[in-house]
Amino acid sequence: MKSYYLAPERIRLCDSLKAPQEGVIICDEKLLALYPELFDKSLAIYPLKASEKTKSWETLAGIYEFLADNKLRRSEIIQVLGGGITCDIAAFAAATFKRGCRIKLYPSTLLAMVDAALGGKSALNHLGQRNLIGSFYPAEAVIIYPDFLKSLPEMELRQGKAEMLKSYLLCNELSEVNLQAGIIPNTEQIMEYALYKMRLCAEDPYDKGIRRLLNFGHSYGHVYGTLLDYRYKHGDAVVMGIYSEVEQSYRKGYLPEADYLKIIEELDKYPLPEGIMRDVRDLDKEMVTRCLAQDKKQGGMAPIATGFRKVEVL
Amino acid sequence: MKSYYLAPERIRLCDSLKAPQEGVIICDEKLLALYPELFDKSLAIYPLKASEKTKSWETLAGIYEFLADNKLRRSEIIQVLGGGITCDIAAFAAATFKRGCRIKLYPSTLLAMVDAALGGKSALNHLGQRNLIGSFYPAEAVIIYPDFLKSLPEMELRQGKAEMLKSYLLCNELSEVNLQAGIIPNTEQIMEYALYKMRLCAEDPYDKGIRRLLNFGHSYGHVYGTLLDYRYKHGDAVVMGIYSEVEQSYRKGYLPEADYLKIIEELDKYPLPEGIMRDVRDLDKEMVTRCLAQDKKQGGMAPIATGFRKVEVL
Repeated sequence: MKSYYLAPERIRLCDSLKAPQEGVIICDEKLLALYPELFDKSLAIYPLKASEKTKSWETLAGIYEFLADNKLRRSEIIQVLGGGITCDIAAFAAATFKRGCRIKLYPSTLLAMVDAALGGKSALNHLGQRNLIGSFYPAEAVIIYPDFLKSLPEMELRQGKAEMLKSYLLCNELSEVNLQAGIIPNTEQIMEYALYKMRLCAEDPYDKGIRRLLNFGHSYGHVYGTLLDYRYKHGDAVVMGIYSEVEQSYRKGYLPEADYLKIIEELDKYPLPEGIMRDVRDLDKEMVTRCLAQDKKQGGMAPIATGFRKVEVL
Repeated sequence: MKSYYLAPERIRLCDSLKAPQEGVIICDEKLLALYPELFDKSLAIYPLKASEKTKSWETLAGIYEFLADNKLRRSEIIQVLGGGITCDIAAFAAATFKRGCRIKLYPSTLLAMVDAALGGKSALNHLGQRNLIGSFYPAEAVIIYPDFLKSLPEMELRQGKAEMLKSYLLCNELSEVNLQAGIIPNTEQIMEYALYKMRLCAEDPYDKGIRRLLNFGHSYGHVYGTLLDYRYKHGDAVVMGIYSEVEQSYRKGYLPEADYLKIIEELDKYPLPEGIMRDVRDLDKEMVTRCLAQDKKQGGMAPIATGFRKVEVL
């Protein structure tokens, strides 16, 4: 069953973004200074300090208060401008305030454009577990404005490329991602990757089948992120997770050596941050295993890397 | 569009209830003492103290911790035994823990059997507003075990009859409810009313159209409940709300005098608790108006009493 709310048409490319004119705004505080022209003074604005540590109940409580103070009705819209963390937490607020308000997302990072803002997953970190609390609540529209990437720091750009690399390893029909620093993917490639994800999500809105491919690297990745106290960012942790998952698959005989070596060759092109390899290697193995057992993706099919493959969802 | 998850078949009548055998249990603490045979010692149990004041974030946080401690997976089930408040809050936890676990409800009060456990609404009170936070998340099954009513206090029984009276005023094809103290509705009538509600919900899962009829009396009712600090219970407050709403409708000319008088005649049969009429009359009118403006059902069609009518959903 395809999901109406996850139709690729929900993604809209936008060459020149104008300030939203209705509802209320939740945005990453950094955007306020960078793009003042995108914020109409007549709309109420809630600026968020976005980090894994603020993706919490406390932040959510602040948003609820903002929505209640502004007497937001269910028929009114929450306009969200920001990266993955901002989108995740604002979407959870939209999903649960008055049992669900309207929401539109304007992802401002590469990672949010090709991944986090798509597919309707909302989330909060809780009890030391990443995304322990959340819901499926697709936005009525996701507006992709590639110009946002011009102001994005290199480190943030890399996190988006990490998720693109993951998709590239899943589907050999996607165009190759240039992992070199300083290179911003062009609009066509961003849309190509965004549509690839959206099509997988539309096929499997609740993450029970084919969509789980997108979790490639994420079981280990989440554990590394958590155990290293979010010292490294999500994309970097996922790339480390992919290393671990393909190694496991190879060792257990699920992955032929040729595929394994090809994936490692691609992964090695990714510019990992200083120290992450050592920090992951130094983690207590038993602790990693215990954390993995808590992973919410357990209890069904776990995605296993089987090398490059064509995932047919077009 | 009919909702699969709100199909009347989700309601199951049960003559002899056995202890649930899988997953974890959330239950009203009172049931533990009353029905020890319903709790298998091998399952983890979270007892809830159920009141409007405990339908809160703090209680939810406790449930999340219980679920995380028991490493509940998305594919596992939360078995919920209790009244409306227990069902509301446990369903919200189920809807949001790991983005949604399985849930089965065993309503233990008349109100929950004919109303609260049906239709997938989950909720928390927040910022002084009843059900400000919530979601739509229908249970995979609602098990109706009428024997629970034998231990239900008269005051609780009355709350259920209040919602039945509301439905009776909406649909003149339903059998009349005996509002006298000490009378427990028979199984056929409970199922008749449960199925009536479920059919309305299945027609309109997200409360955007015909389902709103069920909110009859609830806009004013919620305001009275809140402003009187939940001194009176939900059903009693809703009956007061119906009085107010039909009076408004009659005054504004939406409701013919004959219908108005007929509704009042039926309402007058309801045994309201001592003092509620006076307490509602003494409320600050301006405060009531201000609270009504906050009602989450605003922003669309508000249900207006137009007298007895046949609501055709069979």
